[in-house]
Amino acid sequence: MKKVKIFDLTLRDGSHAKSHQFTPEQMAVLAEQIDSTGVAAIEFGHGNGLGGSALQYGFAAATDREYMEAVAPVVKNADLSIIILPGVGTRHELHLAKEFGAKYARMCTQITEVDIAEQHIKMAKQLGMIPIAVLPCAGIIPVKDTVRYTQMAESYGAEVIYLLDGGGYQLPEQTYERIAAMKKAVDVPIGFHGHNNLQLAVANSKAAVEAGAEYIDCCLKGFGAGAGNCPTEIFAAVMDRMEIDCGIDLYKTMDIAEQYLRPLMPRAMEVDNDRIMLGYAGCYSSFLLFAQRAGARYGVDPRDIIKEIGRRQCTEGQEDICIDVAYALAQKK
Amino acid sequence: MKKVKIFDLTLRDGSHAKSHQFTPEQMAVLAEQIDSTGVAAIEFGHGNGLGGSALQYGFAAATDREYMEAVAPVVKNADLSIIILPGVGTRHELHLAKEFGAKYARMCTQITEVDIAEQHIKMAKQLGMIPIAVLPCAGIIPVKDTVRYTQMAESYGAEVIYLLDGGGYQLPEQTYERIAAMKKAVDVPIGFHGHNNLQLAVANSKAAVEAGAEYIDCCLKGFGAGAGNCPTEIFAAVMDRMEIDCGIDLYKTMDIAEQYLRPLMPRAMEVDNDRIMLGYAGCYSSFLLFAQRAGARYGVDPRDIIKEIGRRQCTEGQEDICIDVAYALAQKK
Repeated sequence: MKKVKIFDLTLRDGSHAKSHQFTPEQMAVLAEQIDSTGVAAIEFGHGNGLGGSALQYGFAAATDREYMEAVAPVVKNADLSIIILPGVGTRHELHLAKEFGAKYARMCTQITEVDIAEQHIKMAKQLGMIPIAVLPCAGIIPVKDTVRYTQMAESYGAEVIYLLDGGGYQLPEQTYERIAAMKKAVDVPIGFHGHNNLQLAVANSKAAVEAGAEYIDCCLKGFGAGAGNCPTEIFAAVMDRMEIDCGIDLYKTMDIAEQYLRPLMPRAMEVDNDRIMLGYAGCYSSFLLFAQRAGARYGVDPRDIIKEIGRRQCTEGQEDICIDVAYALAQKK
Repeated sequence: MKKVKIFDLTLRDGSHAKSHQFTPEQMAVLAEQIDSTGVAAIEFGHGNGLGGSALQYGFAAATDREYMEAVAPVVKNADLSIIILPGVGTRHELHLAKEFGAKYARMCTQITEVDIAEQHIKMAKQLGMIPIAVLPCAGIIPVKDTVRYTQMAESYGAEVIYLLDGGGYQLPEQTYERIAAMKKAVDVPIGFHGHNNLQLAVANSKAAVEAGAEYIDCCLKGFGAGAGNCPTEIFAAVMDRMEIDCGIDLYKTMDIAEQYLRPLMPRAMEVDNDRIMLGYAGCYSSFLLFAQRAGARYGVDPRDIIKEIGRRQCTEGQEDICIDVAYALAQKK
């Protein structure tokens, strides 16, 4: 029977949806419950990973160490996972993860900037953790480039390589094509992390598995950044229907989502117009506010700016381009 | 360029999500707005179609005639559509639809019971309306049976035939296979109506189009029965990405959904555990309450009852079987 490992990110990607305000106690209660469902790994803490609690990303309700102290002791069956944005998280955070027994150290960089994860991957390996490269793209890059960056990640020592559909932009056939190409190009297993901007996170995760992905990121009730992630309980139901073993106790997962997570959710996950627009255009959410401001200043629809940003395949850090785009659109009118 | 027609059901399937309490005035305001977006047809009124306002389905806030009087005059671009469950709606309701200028008369029966729609289809045709057969199945029936019932519907005179994934059970490849087979088997165009129990309504609608469906049912924000339907604005975004013309002004659709529908929604559409379970099992929502009651009586998990009901492919009207199933499950324990 085909097998898939689920990484549960309810307490990490879901932190975004709570403005990083899970308390360590809440995390411990949820982690203990999630640990009983059969997920392969549990990731937790600030939404932007270890070291993320800072002015630019928002402060979390607790420090990385406090979250570690609360969660690590209660997780008995699953493995612990941490994620780091290289630069935001440093060697200090890798040591912290090691101290608390994390098995997986995931490094998240724009797929086109995977080279900046090299040192972190190597250090995680030296510390005895399994380094994973998590490679987001907002829109989509050509298959041959996807393959090239995947091979770079493998050359640094990544032992699993994830494609992350950061904008919820991908259509299932695009996911399939890229995951299949990645799998063919490297020896290490491939993972997928989908967002739900076009309500395709489940379909994309399914397509990824069909193309050979062995690791899928999920959150209870899809609780995650922006439009949210692939909901664990729905993904598990779909896997069961396909006779693929993802190790999950479906009823228990449903019950825990409802009894333990739902009361802590500010609201049900909803795909609002902004999220749809970002997913449609393949534009990072970090551009949203800039597009809205530039649109107001130059009297153009921010959605046209977002569309153009997607067409240009801009990445995080280039948000000021919104002004140029707005100006050009205003001239055209 | 490939073309798809969107039937907007916000004011009909969405009535379920409002317990049929849209006022005629609310419907008129929304219909006028939706009419400006480019949808092919607008369906409205009680969630269970014309004649549905009754004790067994719940009374609507207004009569069929009052809804007709409010909505028909404001719809200038789209065509009007009505739906009838044969038996619930009769010749009286077909005359009413004709009186107000409905172009499409859709007859909805279990796919295995399409024969009971024969008279309604023929009468709609005699009255000069375009008869459409809408064929729900909760789970899934073999392709060859799907084809056979589709051919029966065509033989009665249906000019479009819809497959309705009533339980949100279908996986995209199952939708594709069935729509492709239906298209091959008859001369009339094929439609698809998806529900979102496994968050696959968009992916299934997309798969249906890829298999040759030319009519897709959508609702603004997915506002519809149970887990909801395929959201118009997301479907339109996906079609645009695929360079398929569905006639929709995307920005206008988003704006109307937010400004006019959102304030009338009791809550955002959310796929709760019950809906996931029904979609996973392929069980009609009408069994839910019966399964819960029988489960409590015999001390078994209602979800195991729902799963068994799906396995047996029970259809609406057979809800009492829940007791037998619960008893059998209790014996097994």
